[in-house]
Amino acid sequence: MGSDLLDRRERLLGPNVPTFYDRPVEIVRGEGASLFDADGQRYLDAYNNVAHCGHCHPRIVKAICEQAATLNTHTRYLHEGILDYAEALLGKFAFDGQLLMTCTGSEANDVALRMAQAVTGKRGFIATDNTYHGNTTAVAHLSTRRPPIGGWPDHIRRVPAPDSLTPLGGSLEAQSEAFAANVAQAIAELEESGHGFAGLMLCPIFANEGMPGIAPGFLDPTVEAIRRAGGLILCDEVQPGFGRIGSHFWGHEWLGVTPDVVTMGKPMGNGHPVAGLVATPEVMGAFREAFGYFNTFGGNPVSVAAAMETLRVIEDEGLQENAAQVGDYLLQGLRDLSHPLIADTRGLGLFLGIELARDGEPASDAAGRIVEAMRERHVLMGRVGRAQHILKIRPPMVFNRSDADEILEKLSQSFEELPA
Amino acid sequence: MGSDLLDRRERLLGPNVPTFYDRPVEIVRGEGASLFDADGQRYLDAYNNVAHCGHCHPRIVKAICEQAATLNTHTRYLHEGILDYAEALLGKFAFDGQLLMTCTGSEANDVALRMAQAVTGKRGFIATDNTYHGNTTAVAHLSTRRPPIGGWPDHIRRVPAPDSLTPLGGSLEAQSEAFAANVAQAIAELEESGHGFAGLMLCPIFANEGMPGIAPGFLDPTVEAIRRAGGLILCDEVQPGFGRIGSHFWGHEWLGVTPDVVTMGKPMGNGHPVAGLVATPEVMGAFREAFGYFNTFGGNPVSVAAAMETLRVIEDEGLQENAAQVGDYLLQGLRDLSHPLIADTRGLGLFLGIELARDGEPASDAAGRIVEAMRERHVLMGRVGRAQHILKIRPPMVFNRSDADEILEKLSQSFEELPA
Repeated sequence: MGSDLLDRRERLLGPNVPTFYDRPVEIVRGEGASLFDADGQRYLDAYNNVAHCGHCHPRIVKAICEQAATLNTHTRYLHEGILDYAEALLGKFAFDGQLLMTCTGSEANDVALRMAQAVTGKRGFIATDNTYHGNTTAVAHLSTRRPPIGGWPDHIRRVPAPDSLTPLGGSLEAQSEAFAANVAQAIAELEESGHGFAGLMLCPIFANEGMPGIAPGFLDPTVEAIRRAGGLILCDEVQPGFGRIGSHFWGHEWLGVTPDVVTMGKPMGNGHPVAGLVATPEVMGAFREAFGYFNTFGGNPVSVAAAMETLRVIEDEGLQENAAQVGDYLLQGLRDLSHPLIADTRGLGLFLGIELARDGEPASDAAGRIVEAMRERHVLMGRVGRAQHILKIRPPMVFNRSDADEILEKLSQSFEELPA
Repeated sequence: MGSDLLDRRERLLGPNVPTFYDRPVEIVRGEGASLFDADGQRYLDAYNNVAHCGHCHPRIVKAICEQAATLNTHTRYLHEGILDYAEALLGKFAFDGQLLMTCTGSEANDVALRMAQAVTGKRGFIATDNTYHGNTTAVAHLSTRRPPIGGWPDHIRRVPAPDSLTPLGGSLEAQSEAFAANVAQAIAELEESGHGFAGLMLCPIFANEGMPGIAPGFLDPTVEAIRRAGGLILCDEVQPGFGRIGSHFWGHEWLGVTPDVVTMGKPMGNGHPVAGLVATPEVMGAFREAFGYFNTFGGNPVSVAAAMETLRVIEDEGLQENAAQVGDYLLQGLRDLSHPLIADTRGLGLFLGIELARDGEPASDAAGRIVEAMRERHVLMGRVGRAQHILKIRPPMVFNRSDADEILEKLSQSFEELPA
């Protein structure tokens, strides 16, 4: 079955369409934190942050169905839905914001870059050297996974990402100062090159960088350097946002940063293609003045209904608190795992990582083995980090203690099998 | 009510969020080719091509609901849905193709540009001087509505769009040769500039250009010039595709062109955010080799279910044939309208235009007046063309003769009120 599907994929979709696992899984049904394959076998989902409130959450499905049966059009007509949602969402921010809706996080980040350009009149951006912010041409320039067609563009500068395995400095304070110094250096280079400096885009918990062990305040010296240069701070909350980290609703709150633009995506509609940006009125105004932006599907009544019900479920079911509690319980359990390759275990709410290293070097092979072994044990998880050597646990936010126990037990078994 | 909503929009979404009409309409419900405002008043929808099979088509709503309640995840797991859809969709093409799915037409066009870059290793593109292909940074460079932040990029060259009011040459054949000569000139400039020539992106019916009166074969000399230079032909079927033009399922079939890449969007899921590209295996392979593309929401089971049911409804309800028949009936009726400002009336299926001119110059003001007068008569339509002087009729494909009679009667009334 699986190999038939793989053959059909290759024929119909072409080569190199990404799949997970040596033996890819065919998933046909989802419920809560469970996924089921074509044979009815259950998998515990410890990977998918998109299904934030759990797969196929009945309230969100109902909201989508009711609105899809009533009206699905665009924002060139007036509709209360997007306004009610904007009010609810903006209420989750500590700063004064306005909302622009898109369909994907990539589109949101693509707009965020132009917002910074509109405000500053400059073209240059800074990102870390181990990140991913999306798949449009402009946003893919920030990524380091693969060089863009035509080569790396000169107006993007990369600074070394914080890294727990090879820290930029001794103390956390030294790391923080080193990061800021690198940003200041990149700003100077951009200014010298003629591009000028428009802004820094980053995920406030450095999720794709492997969620290195930093702390609130880490970015303070960097923020100072950015403000001094007149650049904007663009926080990509696609991964940490909507309560994922437990202690705060947004990653930037945890980090202690006030961004100019916040972008969001994946979990925003529990799987429905909805994404967006919140920007200060000054930034939104500059963008709306400079660029006649319209997104046909962005902010349509159905997408908004999905997003609104997702927000309500997060609140009604206390999912942020659940992330804090179950995340803490799971982190304690993960820290009890014992294996010579485990270099560090860390987490914020329901975003947790186990860094694997051998003689101070990333143990990518071991991380790959664990992920495959867990898949065979019917637990879906991933890996991340500059060498894909950090096990990543990032489940739907309805993950409970019993789910945590299951993953802990199976991780323990998988590590037992792992050579040192 | 309307002004309250406008105030809330300005406060929550910022300034310059596009709306239609001097007195924007609040739409709360849709059904078939009808939209209803908050007071229960009906509007005939002669504008929205997104609701291709009619607003809130029950079969498509049902398909979305059933799949949303079952599974909504991404293509890194195997799923038959996207493969069944790919088979059905690719069957609608006369050439051998493979499918890549995105969420928006903008994302699809953004990928199409990179496909041409991957194949050719070149960066330069040609588009017409009066077009719109989407809203990402890279794709917005092709548009001429407003200069991009940072100015017009050098690797995009624009050629004069075919224009019925001010033709590029005398006969249609002369216009066709003139268009090709301009493309050849732009290719030469791109090659000289060092960017090289990657491809031409165009809508095969030149929809945003005002659907000028060209004919099949028009592009033949241009295709020859492009092939000679090794560039790709990227057809944006967001507007003409899925049977809209009546005579053919795709605009490029009508034009008589075999593209390397076809992009599609708006009507593909009847309003659900789904879009995609069909490319030849050679092109898809080159892109998939050069670029590690993954789109989180792209091709998810719910989007695919919406797209699949949309395709089935188009076939089961004979919507392409309906577009041909009702479109022809409507075109005849539009040609019977009489007013000194009507310079030309033309159409392909259910995409029709009335070009308004005064002394050979675009009569934009008159077109604006008609659109507003029609809105007051509860018919929603738009305008297009280099000076927004062409009335655009592009309704859901379930538009019937009685709908056609209604728009004809109200257009006749509106033209009667229009000063010459």
